[in-house]
Amino acid sequence: MASLPILDFYRRSSRADLRSDLVAGLTVGVMLVPQGMAYGMLAGLSPVVGLYASTLPLIVYGVLGTSRVLAVGPVAVVSMLTLSAIAPHAAAGSDVALGMAVTLAALVGVIQLVMAALRASFFVNFLSHPVLSGFGTASALLIMVSQVGPLLGFRSPRGHTLIELAPGVVSGLNEAIPVTAAVGLGSMLFLIGFKRLSKTLPAALFVVILSVAANLLLDLERAYGLAVVGEVPGGLPMPVLPGLSDVRTLLPSALAIALVGYVESISVAQSFARRAGHKVDAGQELLALGAANLASAFVQGMPVTGGFSRTAVAAEVGVRSPIASVVAALTVIVVLLFLTPFFTHLPLAALAATIIVAVWSLVDIKEIRHILAVKRRDVLPLLATLAVTLLLGVEPGIAAGVALSLGLFLWRSARPHVATLGQMPGTTEYRNVVRHPEAVPPPGVAILRVDASLYFANAAFLRDELERIAHDGSARVMVLDLSAVNDVDVSAVSALEEGAAALRARGVSLRLARVKGPVGDVLGRAGFLASVPAFETVHEAATAA
Amino acid sequence: MASLPILDFYRRSSRADLRSDLVAGLTVGVMLVPQGMAYGMLAGLSPVVGLYASTLPLIVYGVLGTSRVLAVGPVAVVSMLTLSAIAPHAAAGSDVALGMAVTLAALVGVIQLVMAALRASFFVNFLSHPVLSGFGTASALLIMVSQVGPLLGFRSPRGHTLIELAPGVVSGLNEAIPVTAAVGLGSMLFLIGFKRLSKTLPAALFVVILSVAANLLLDLERAYGLAVVGEVPGGLPMPVLPGLSDVRTLLPSALAIALVGYVESISVAQSFARRAGHKVDAGQELLALGAANLASAFVQGMPVTGGFSRTAVAAEVGVRSPIASVVAALTVIVVLLFLTPFFTHLPLAALAATIIVAVWSLVDIKEIRHILAVKRRDVLPLLATLAVTLLLGVEPGIAAGVALSLGLFLWRSARPHVATLGQMPGTTEYRNVVRHPEAVPPPGVAILRVDASLYFANAAFLRDELERIAHDGSARVMVLDLSAVNDVDVSAVSALEEGAAALRARGVSLRLARVKGPVGDVLGRAGFLASVPAFETVHEAATAA
Repeated sequence: MASLPILDFYRRSSRADLRSDLVAGLTVGVMLVPQGMAYGMLAGLSPVVGLYASTLPLIVYGVLGTSRVLAVGPVAVVSMLTLSAIAPHAAAGSDVALGMAVTLAALVGVIQLVMAALRASFFVNFLSHPVLSGFGTASALLIMVSQVGPLLGFRSPRGHTLIELAPGVVSGLNEAIPVTAAVGLGSMLFLIGFKRLSKTLPAALFVVILSVAANLLLDLERAYGLAVVGEVPGGLPMPVLPGLSDVRTLLPSALAIALVGYVESISVAQSFARRAGHKVDAGQELLALGAANLASAFVQGMPVTGGFSRTAVAAEVGVRSPIASVVAALTVIVVLLFLTPFFTHLPLAALAATIIVAVWSLVDIKEIRHILAVKRRDVLPLLATLAVTLLLGVEPGIAAGVALSLGLFLWRSARPHVATLGQMPGTTEYRNVVRHPEAVPPPGVAILRVDASLYFANAAFLRDELERIAHDGSARVMVLDLSAVNDVDVSAVSALEEGAAALRARGVSLRLARVKGPVGDVLGRAGFLASVPAFETVHEAATAA
Repeated sequence: MASLPILDFYRRSSRADLRSDLVAGLTVGVMLVPQGMAYGMLAGLSPVVGLYASTLPLIVYGVLGTSRVLAVGPVAVVSMLTLSAIAPHAAAGSDVALGMAVTLAALVGVIQLVMAALRASFFVNFLSHPVLSGFGTASALLIMVSQVGPLLGFRSPRGHTLIELAPGVVSGLNEAIPVTAAVGLGSMLFLIGFKRLSKTLPAALFVVILSVAANLLLDLERAYGLAVVGEVPGGLPMPVLPGLSDVRTLLPSALAIALVGYVESISVAQSFARRAGHKVDAGQELLALGAANLASAFVQGMPVTGGFSRTAVAAEVGVRSPIASVVAALTVIVVLLFLTPFFTHLPLAALAATIIVAVWSLVDIKEIRHILAVKRRDVLPLLATLAVTLLLGVEPGIAAGVALSLGLFLWRSARPHVATLGQMPGTTEYRNVVRHPEAVPPPGVAILRVDASLYFANAAFLRDELERIAHDGSARVMVLDLSAVNDVDVSAVSALEEGAAALRARGVSLRLARVKGPVGDVLGRAGFLASVPAFETVHEAATAA
């Protein structure tokens, strides 16, 4: 990086761009206030922690980030992961919980910075889209279930799996407080209705204002036991250094948050950049997110990342550069300095409604339908992630999804597709006889095309295929079309040698065709090509004397 | 299986075959007696346990096995794995150690039978040849180091890593007993010299006889403290049921032994069958080995498998069917019934010499040289397995080797080779411009061939390549040659869609060429082919209007 990204953006901004960023940044900031508080509560922390996490981290991302529109801050899935990391060790809203959240944010930041330094952003490629989709759906369901308590006014059960949460929610329904339920469900209906009218107006802010007004005017808090946010410390957070005692406990969760947070953020950033014909720098984004998380720890915040819904609004209201992110942070800072007394009387039910409506879009049935239509078996990792996340929790869910998708890939690559080829009548082309029944191999010749790179896990399969043909077949010549073999390792070379020996012992001569450059190099060095001839085309191999 | 394999073999045997099997089986049995005792000692058990493991298991394998020449019984690597499993929990030669060995053999048997029932022999494909070679070399080195003590007459240090063993061996050298060392080193020299003369004569048996004779004639035991086998219970072992209390402790080791033992056995069986133009049934072999291990537990034995060195002798001396395996077992039984008093005075140093000479052939420097010559980077898993086995032990060694070889495969598949193609002058063929500098693409056309199946781990890489070309290139048409793409998953389809969108935003039109059947099916169902045309050949795609 020759200079800070924000300076480049500033230099290239016109006055109109800057004005647009100012207005749009204000809008995003106003939207961030209720969302930040809601996600703070979702993470098992005091709601104000979500506001703290919406200050310095946004400025740091704004200075270092390369996406024009990405809105960084507390988001639903990362808040859920934070809850699952700290809930087993600390009571909701306690100082212990806060300390752990701060340490977690610092760890996430350090991990992301280390990954950026090692250029290891590459690892996130192993988090496939179906796994993320299944994880998102499961998280959204868990989040919704966890918010039923605050929404209706009963004590939420502790836990972060469906097994732990469901019984408490069902039995809690009897203890729901009608007035709280009215505020919560009313807020939900308001948010849903408003969303249909406009996607850019800060509906959540109206819900905040209206629900506080209703509470104060009707004295719901004292008369009916409506739960509220309570005393919020005014002013800016004191900078802290994160504690180190919980590092070991929190490390696995921090790793999951660092990876999942980055994947969510970079996917959103890239998808918006693509639409506008821009580019984002994946490595620099990781660095910017890592720095933002460290900043979040510094201001007593929680882990943050770039999220979809606020970014969509940001793009809609005209954000043109990360300068808007700085404006949004300043908006939240002004709120923290002057408006916190107002939130004392904010009903928790209104925040719960905000969360439930926000995460509804994560329930991704469309993706399941899409996968079933395109490639049925790819739905397995999605369903496994979904089921394990719901039943065992968020980290086992991700681990199961990644392991299953890699396992299925390895399993498929270990039993590759092998096509029998025949000659297309009147041509020198050879095609799969299954797809082209008119194709027939020349008499006494068997032609196989192996559709996979050859390596230790499928080497035995290949050798067994060749041995099977040596024992069963009537062919005197066996042509192996290697056009789809991109790579061979030493185990595969041994397997080929063994297969060739078995064929030779039965009087069948093996020939190769269409061997790729790197594959030919390896086979040549192993001496394999000294006894088995290689031809440029299948036709030459099949018809040579 | 319509009938027991041994009945088929019997039916097809001539009188000459049966006579040959009888003589050869006797020879193998005679060879097995000293080896069995040596491997019993190596496993940290009383030597007689190795003899027990050379009785019923061989009969069971003989009845169920499909290899004509495979010699089943105690082998070096599996004995080393057994030692590493039980040494941390029991003193060498104790009853506790024996109980654990019996349970271990039973567990190995059950695991192999379950794998056979699930047709899961397939999993062993993930133990690549380089990993097994590195493991064999490391095991041989560890075994040799562990036998220096008994060879020279000092107390062997406990442990099963080089770190644990080496200091004790070095300091032990001072306490070596000269007479023991003379017997040990003399036996070694005898074995090495004899091996050069003939590979089929039972050299180890001569060492046993000569060393017992020397001991008795010169009164080495009482006069110089030569360590001997000691009282060996005569007769056959009492059948036992394995204990269940150690199952949890022993399960990981049992899994390692079941896999490694099966891989060693099936490799040996297949390689000898191949040379003779026969076949072995991999699934039936797993079943036969599992049953043999259960049988070994039943007769107070230790885990067994098919090994290379005795099988080589068996083939050499004329074994023609598994009937010889039954004869060998009967030979050992006769020894157990009538000759055990003779072994009371057998020097342990002679057994140590037998072990050291036997495992020397496992040190596989040739394989390292071969891999370095054929494909340099494939040596990494071998060296990792070697190093981790020596330093941390046998199970971490195998785990590290498998993990690294799979990791390297995934890493490579995540960054596939992408070739830029050009038109070969005067033809309609397109080749990699790096290997064929005379090949040039038509003006305004970029042609890429992706040399890998496309899936979630390389989907982002592909999309980034397309986006890079969209931003950098001067091409108006981009042709993607998919001839080497054997499979696509939904993540790769999304990546192609995103890449196509990025190209379209820049006014570049994407075309596909040489799409394989299954890939075309998936792309068609996803609707991708509605906006991106696919052509039969690269030439058509590159030159279409």
